[in-house]
Amino acid sequence: EIVTEIIAKLSDGPLQGKRILVTSGPTHEPIDPVRYIANRSSGAQGAAMARALRDLGAEVVFITGPASVCPPEGVTVVAVETAEQMSEAVDSALPADAGVFAAAVSDWRVVNASDQKLKKSKDGLPVMEFAENPDILKRVSHLEKGRPDLVVGFAAETNDVIEYATAKRLRKGCDWIVANDVSPATGIMGGSENAVVLIGENGAEEWPRMGKDQVAQQLAQRIAQALTS
Amino acid sequence: EIVTEIIAKLSDGPLQGKRILVTSGPTHEPIDPVRYIANRSSGAQGAAMARALRDLGAEVVFITGPASVCPPEGVTVVAVETAEQMSEAVDSALPADAGVFAAAVSDWRVVNASDQKLKKSKDGLPVMEFAENPDILKRVSHLEKGRPDLVVGFAAETNDVIEYATAKRLRKGCDWIVANDVSPATGIMGGSENAVVLIGENGAEEWPRMGKDQVAQQLAQRIAQALTS
Repeated sequence: EIVTEIIAKLSDGPLQGKRILVTSGPTHEPIDPVRYIANRSSGAQGAAMARALRDLGAEVVFITGPASVCPPEGVTVVAVETAEQMSEAVDSALPADAGVFAAAVSDWRVVNASDQKLKKSKDGLPVMEFAENPDILKRVSHLEKGRPDLVVGFAAETNDVIEYATAKRLRKGCDWIVANDVSPATGIMGGSENAVVLIGENGAEEWPRMGKDQVAQQLAQRIAQALTS
Repeated sequence: EIVTEIIAKLSDGPLQGKRILVTSGPTHEPIDPVRYIANRSSGAQGAAMARALRDLGAEVVFITGPASVCPPEGVTVVAVETAEQMSEAVDSALPADAGVFAAAVSDWRVVNASDQKLKKSKDGLPVMEFAENPDILKRVSHLEKGRPDLVVGFAAETNDVIEYATAKRLRKGCDWIVANDVSPATGIMGGSENAVVLIGENGAEEWPRMGKDQVAQQLAQRIAQALTS
């Protein structure tokens, strides 16, 4: 690991001098002091992205929710829990040459989250009210001032992957969407491999199933091409 | 660890020949294939209980939700995810001389959990319907046939600990409640210490704040006394 770092720092990688923001992991949205809503993101793809970008010489700011994999060495780590905290951390980390938004951010939070442990209502069941979380990818994609040259979003879908992810790219205004099929049958969510479709302005490019490290290395190469061409 | 095990097996511990069921960890209740409701239980207290009971010679069946600490060696591990799975695993593990229900089981599950990733409703917010989960502690406490001689429940409270826990003991029908204050100010939830109140038929006994391993060892001693007196 240390050797990799030294090589990255000594080598004249194609991303030398570029500052890249990577978000990673799940967010946890509190219900009360003991309960929360989570998602199955392990943070493995985001951590691999940060590592691959670092290896090409980039200065990486790694903003991570409570992931089950450790952040790579040699990047600036900002640890957060909720979507709102992640959004603020992204603001603080800008400007950047590229933003890679690999975190699985909860779309909403519990608006009646309680400081005390939730007691059951009369029928024994909780009543949860939700509010939309900040849409980090959309907001950064639409920044008039200080938008990164390249904004990359991720999409985890369980069905109609290309259709949903293509629509997501247009809706969010990002440059690329890295889409993957996380339907339970694939065993991908929480696993070590990804079957990725890269969606850009020229359409969808289906990549063969490969390790998350390989996906990250290929994406990092593409990012380097995009930022230096 | 191996030495501890050998000593436990060779020694004539007071729980030799006793079969004890321990539940531990959080449960995860799925919302859809990628999202779930969780709680902050690390499983540390349950794992420490299993280890302490094993060290006194008990045959331990350890039924654990997705905990962040590893199960101890030398116990039979049954890994589950949801409250319903934990309930079934408890049924399969009975009969036992004692049941120690340290798991932080979700009181309810999402009844409209979806096989596909939840899409937003018109207003962008999810609609979750809840159903009550099986009440494992109450059911085992009220078993007419095959009730363990000693049933121990746990209560994590953020306020009015003794009052809530005393009421819980009566409501559930268990013999003891091990109550602890998990209000955020204590830093106990997810930490390494516990400030425990042991509630039995003779009232509440406040223990000093101590490590979870020490809590477990003292409880295991008390369980041994109760089962062998």
